[in-house]
Amino acid sequence: MDIKQQAKLVKLASPKMAGSSEEQRNNALNAVVEALKTHREQIFEANKKDLEQAARDNVATPIVKRLKFDETKLRDVIAGIQDLVKLPDPLFRKQMNRQLDEGLTLVRETCPIGVIGVIFEARPDALIQISALCIKSGNCVILKGGSETMNSNRVLFQIIYDAVTKSGMPENCMLQLEARSEISELLTCNEHVDLLIPRGSNAFVQYIMNNTKIPVMGHADGICHIYVDKDANMEKAIPIIIDAKTQYVSACNAVETLLIHKDIADEFVPKLYEILKENHVELRGSEKIVSLTGCEESNDEDDKTEYLDLIVSAKEVDSMEKAIDHINYFGSHHTDCIITEDKEAAEYFMKYVDSAGVYQNCSTRFADGYRYGFGAEVGISTSKIHARGPVGLEGLVSYKYKLYGSGNIVDDYAKGKSAFHFKDL
Amino acid sequence: MDIKQQAKLVKLASPKMAGSSEEQRNNALNAVVEALKTHREQIFEANKKDLEQAARDNVATPIVKRLKFDETKLRDVIAGIQDLVKLPDPLFRKQMNRQLDEGLTLVRETCPIGVIGVIFEARPDALIQISALCIKSGNCVILKGGSETMNSNRVLFQIIYDAVTKSGMPENCMLQLEARSEISELLTCNEHVDLLIPRGSNAFVQYIMNNTKIPVMGHADGICHIYVDKDANMEKAIPIIIDAKTQYVSACNAVETLLIHKDIADEFVPKLYEILKENHVELRGSEKIVSLTGCEESNDEDDKTEYLDLIVSAKEVDSMEKAIDHINYFGSHHTDCIITEDKEAAEYFMKYVDSAGVYQNCSTRFADGYRYGFGAEVGISTSKIHARGPVGLEGLVSYKYKLYGSGNIVDDYAKGKSAFHFKDL
Repeated sequence: MDIKQQAKLVKLASPKMAGSSEEQRNNALNAVVEALKTHREQIFEANKKDLEQAARDNVATPIVKRLKFDETKLRDVIAGIQDLVKLPDPLFRKQMNRQLDEGLTLVRETCPIGVIGVIFEARPDALIQISALCIKSGNCVILKGGSETMNSNRVLFQIIYDAVTKSGMPENCMLQLEARSEISELLTCNEHVDLLIPRGSNAFVQYIMNNTKIPVMGHADGICHIYVDKDANMEKAIPIIIDAKTQYVSACNAVETLLIHKDIADEFVPKLYEILKENHVELRGSEKIVSLTGCEESNDEDDKTEYLDLIVSAKEVDSMEKAIDHINYFGSHHTDCIITEDKEAAEYFMKYVDSAGVYQNCSTRFADGYRYGFGAEVGISTSKIHARGPVGLEGLVSYKYKLYGSGNIVDDYAKGKSAFHFKDL
Repeated sequence: MDIKQQAKLVKLASPKMAGSSEEQRNNALNAVVEALKTHREQIFEANKKDLEQAARDNVATPIVKRLKFDETKLRDVIAGIQDLVKLPDPLFRKQMNRQLDEGLTLVRETCPIGVIGVIFEARPDALIQISALCIKSGNCVILKGGSETMNSNRVLFQIIYDAVTKSGMPENCMLQLEARSEISELLTCNEHVDLLIPRGSNAFVQYIMNNTKIPVMGHADGICHIYVDKDANMEKAIPIIIDAKTQYVSACNAVETLLIHKDIADEFVPKLYEILKENHVELRGSEKIVSLTGCEESNDEDDKTEYLDLIVSAKEVDSMEKAIDHINYFGSHHTDCIITEDKEAAEYFMKYVDSAGVYQNCSTRFADGYRYGFGAEVGISTSKIHARGPVGLEGLVSYKYKLYGSGNIVDDYAKGKSAFHFKDL
């Protein structure tokens, strides 16, 4: 069977999945927890194979850290699933209950999106988290994880699939793809997949977005800015910048560009430069910044570059408005921050910067589903359609309109025999 | 200036539009009302030119009816705008207010989508309604109306644009395209347009969806079903079917396929056939239906055809489950109805049918923003991403996350020096 035929089976399972009760879905999640505990040795063994292969391939240490799936990570994902079980059901919620007329009532109720395709990095814990979020939200899921964890993924998928189907979820409610070549087949399944969530490099996400008719949720670039206002508290600004740049340098919410108000530059920039050096961060600056520090000069490319490295660019700006214009023009609408003690300036910045996250006086690294209290996240969206920012359970549901009548026809309303009265119940 | 450059100016105006207050936007709408009244003669004159051209082109009567813009239509659109002014502001609504930790508060607030491109049929009142919805929701808009109303559109656009910019909305907050060839240019403006809403024929909407990277909201097919259950009340079923088929035959929410439970077919189908004939509706049926009526036999094509004409197909089904499977497989996920007195059957049908509208005992023609009490609508969406069903103001907004800190850095949480406590305020 090719991927399209398999995806169709998943699609056909989706109404059954959508109709499953909260209890059934929570039971399935509890069954996953039990199965993960029971099969722990099998999982660790498969992960060992991946790690051995990574060693043979001379994979970099930070990546190996992500591949590794040990007792600690197992404990964390199990705790995560148990938290998810406790969360309120995202389905069957009445968002509207409106009497249109006597004997004609409209109800808007949440329902799953249907079939979600997630393409994610080589991290066994990601496979478990994504599966759990989809089960909780009544969605069928097609998973494609990074090939560096193929052994772990194969074992984990089988354990999870067996547990959920045995506990009563429909057959084919989950599907795993293994070969990288299957991604391009998945992209053609617009009749059977309702939403794609690609996670990974800018180029990879762009490729997905450009090659499918399926709606895509996610983000390509993460060019985040920190604007240091004239009324900034420097004691806050410096640790925030260091954290936003160095706490996890390859994250999409790391800062790439600093915009510094001219009135504060003379005093602030030399101090900042010293501390950046201490933290091994290379500074690239506009002419003014170069004159204050002797750092390397930045060029037009720097304004639109996501370094994902220990490099940051800095620019002097004449006003907050200029900073906002720069961010809206060059930014990626991900997460941008103002450092200021001036409340009004902060509100102005947060109103006019067109990004998923607009921050005052804190690190851009907070842009994350866990840190927002969503439990896990399936991704971060820079689109303004559907879900924006970190996407948890709420971003995985849609809604339907239920209309309960008693023989009502439109012609009576068109001819004035009946009239709507629109009463929210 | 080409369309891309013009669209960029609209995009650059969008943060200013997004920051405008409720009062400013309502003032702009009131200014539009005044301007429409002041320039009524100019509008009617332009419309007369369109009607004369339509007469020369021998345009069909129902289309001419849509082109015509007279006193009655002017009064209706003005009443519509005045209703819109009274609706609560869709922007700056707090959807979440959560303390993550002492001195670190997350707020989720609604904001406009940005720049919306709407391609719509030749109806002057549509231009006014769409503009008004976009102004109320703080969105910039690029309009392309049907070319049969080009004279009316040109005059209406200028009147509206002048009124809103004079009342303080930013320059370039609206743009009108005139030539059909400009549509293909618009489709390439994915950097400057956040959402496209195409209205029109199935083929046209498909063309748009297949030729742009901009997210598209709308619907192509409208293949709506009515399932007549074994516990249907026939006195309700027949008028509902006649209304759903004939009240406005070219609407997307008109019924195209009837599914009839075998236990009721012998009694129901002959009665239905007589009344369909009285209403000049052609019936095409499965073998059983043919044997009961002598109507023309349907074929596989009928299951997936949106007739938009006085034709309906009918099929006998062995069970409700079979009807649901048929609808989910052949339907367009628009609006589908069950006729039954059995509450449990209705709930089952409404849970398992995967459509934007799932109805019991009423006409599918109710699927409409006005009839749902949304005021106007910009379109009907069969997508499950973002907005589904009739789309009013609520479907034209997104949200942003505002995070207010006091110098907080992620490293303190990663190292356990600080801990999140997630308290909804």
